[in-house]
Amino acid sequence: MLSKNIIKHINALKQNKFRDEFQEFIAEGDKLVTELLSSNFKIIEIFAVKEWLDIHKISDNVAITEVTVSELERISGLITPNMVLALVEIPQQQSIDTFIFEKLILVLDEIKDPGNLGTIIRIADWFGISDIVCSKHSVDVYNPKVVQATMGSIARVNIQYVDLSIFLKNIPKDIPIYGTLLNGENIYNQTLSENGIIIIGNESKGISNELLPFITNKLYIPFFAENSNNKAESLNASIATAIVCAEFKRRAFFA
Amino acid sequence: MLSKNIIKHINALKQNKFRDEFQEFIAEGDKLVTELLSSNFKIIEIFAVKEWLDIHKISDNVAITEVTVSELERISGLITPNMVLALVEIPQQQSIDTFIFEKLILVLDEIKDPGNLGTIIRIADWFGISDIVCSKHSVDVYNPKVVQATMGSIARVNIQYVDLSIFLKNIPKDIPIYGTLLNGENIYNQTLSENGIIIIGNESKGISNELLPFITNKLYIPFFAENSNNKAESLNASIATAIVCAEFKRRAFFA
Repeated sequence: MLSKNIIKHINALKQNKFRDEFQEFIAEGDKLVTELLSSNFKIIEIFAVKEWLDIHKISDNVAITEVTVSELERISGLITPNMVLALVEIPQQQSIDTFIFEKLILVLDEIKDPGNLGTIIRIADWFGISDIVCSKHSVDVYNPKVVQATMGSIARVNIQYVDLSIFLKNIPKDIPIYGTLLNGENIYNQTLSENGIIIIGNESKGISNELLPFITNKLYIPFFAENSNNKAESLNASIATAIVCAEFKRRAFFA
Repeated sequence: MLSKNIIKHINALKQNKFRDEFQEFIAEGDKLVTELLSSNFKIIEIFAVKEWLDIHKISDNVAITEVTVSELERISGLITPNMVLALVEIPQQQSIDTFIFEKLILVLDEIKDPGNLGTIIRIADWFGISDIVCSKHSVDVYNPKVVQATMGSIARVNIQYVDLSIFLKNIPKDIPIYGTLLNGENIYNQTLSENGIIIIGNESKGISNELLPFITNKLYIPFFAENSNNKAESLNASIATAIVCAEFKRRAFFA
């Protein structure tokens, strides 16, 4: 049985300001909730239909509320609610350890679309990139649309929000900083290292001017259209991220 | 001034059955409409605000209706209507010319998500792939969400809907048929040709069983996560398409 207060509370968490205030977010569906339950995230409460609870063993320190399908509909943000919704604590932002510079790190400069951020987190997970650093003006990773679009990868990728100018200024001098730019060099002709920073720009504006001076290696995904009057102007930010990450990993493992 | 009938007609075109009946679709926004105007598509009518009409010269054989912002809102499918909406004739489906086998062709086996199909068309355009062949159960390319997601690339990529079993059965024997499969071979270790078919499967079910026997080269995008308990299970269909297309073109041009 759901109280009016809990329904109100959960629906409020669809808004950034209430997530900030309560430091909680929601995640829905069997796959996502199951992955969060086996991660380091702290699950505050599970709201699930009997059918789901019957086949999942939940740790004793997680509160459980059995709900009906129609109750689940009242708290769900999905068009078709999917058996379970978890109320999850937003983890404290950790300070950035210097050891992450031994690996590839994605830096996102104002990704605004929730689907793009969720997809980029899923791509990072696939390619074994465990750290993403976002500008403070990027979409919130705990926005329900981002959480759902990660398909569970949010449980395995660390996401930080920082002032990117300060972050990039403090990168050790020997760490390459790659950026994808329209006036960059063909990625397929460039040396790519196994560690370093890869900056992905905003969906329409690209990488912001104040970050350009930090880039040591400008990259460009070549355009293969056969006739020169082709006007395809850009690739979606998450598509570009996928192609770039795939090429870095191909070089490291299969070139 | 918009009549009730035209408002009703345009809104009806958001549904598949009315697009089928009238053989018309709608496209919105400056970039998309401008690209369609300079393509082979037949534009039936333009509905645009004065500001847009003032700076665009439209051919005499296209009907033009000046609308107010609030009138545009009544016919638009966008959250924020964008100056212009075009009523466009659905082109007759051409028969498939055999010459397309000299190039790369994307075959989509039941892509269901409009955003995915739109994004795949945009990827094809970027990589110079001018032919996409879809199964008859794929989402309709003239669905407004697909049209918008192509960002104009719909004007440059030919999309056909066919019975894929029949299509693949009639492919010349020397044309390789690639498919992305979980049990495929690492794409980075395989020979990739400059022409051939690349089959992309449905978002959740992958490539359907009846098409598997046609595949001559099974491909897999390797999973690079560092620890084996990582559970990232798949890449989004459009992300996988991008990575595969990029690798085919890299081999042809830069390897």
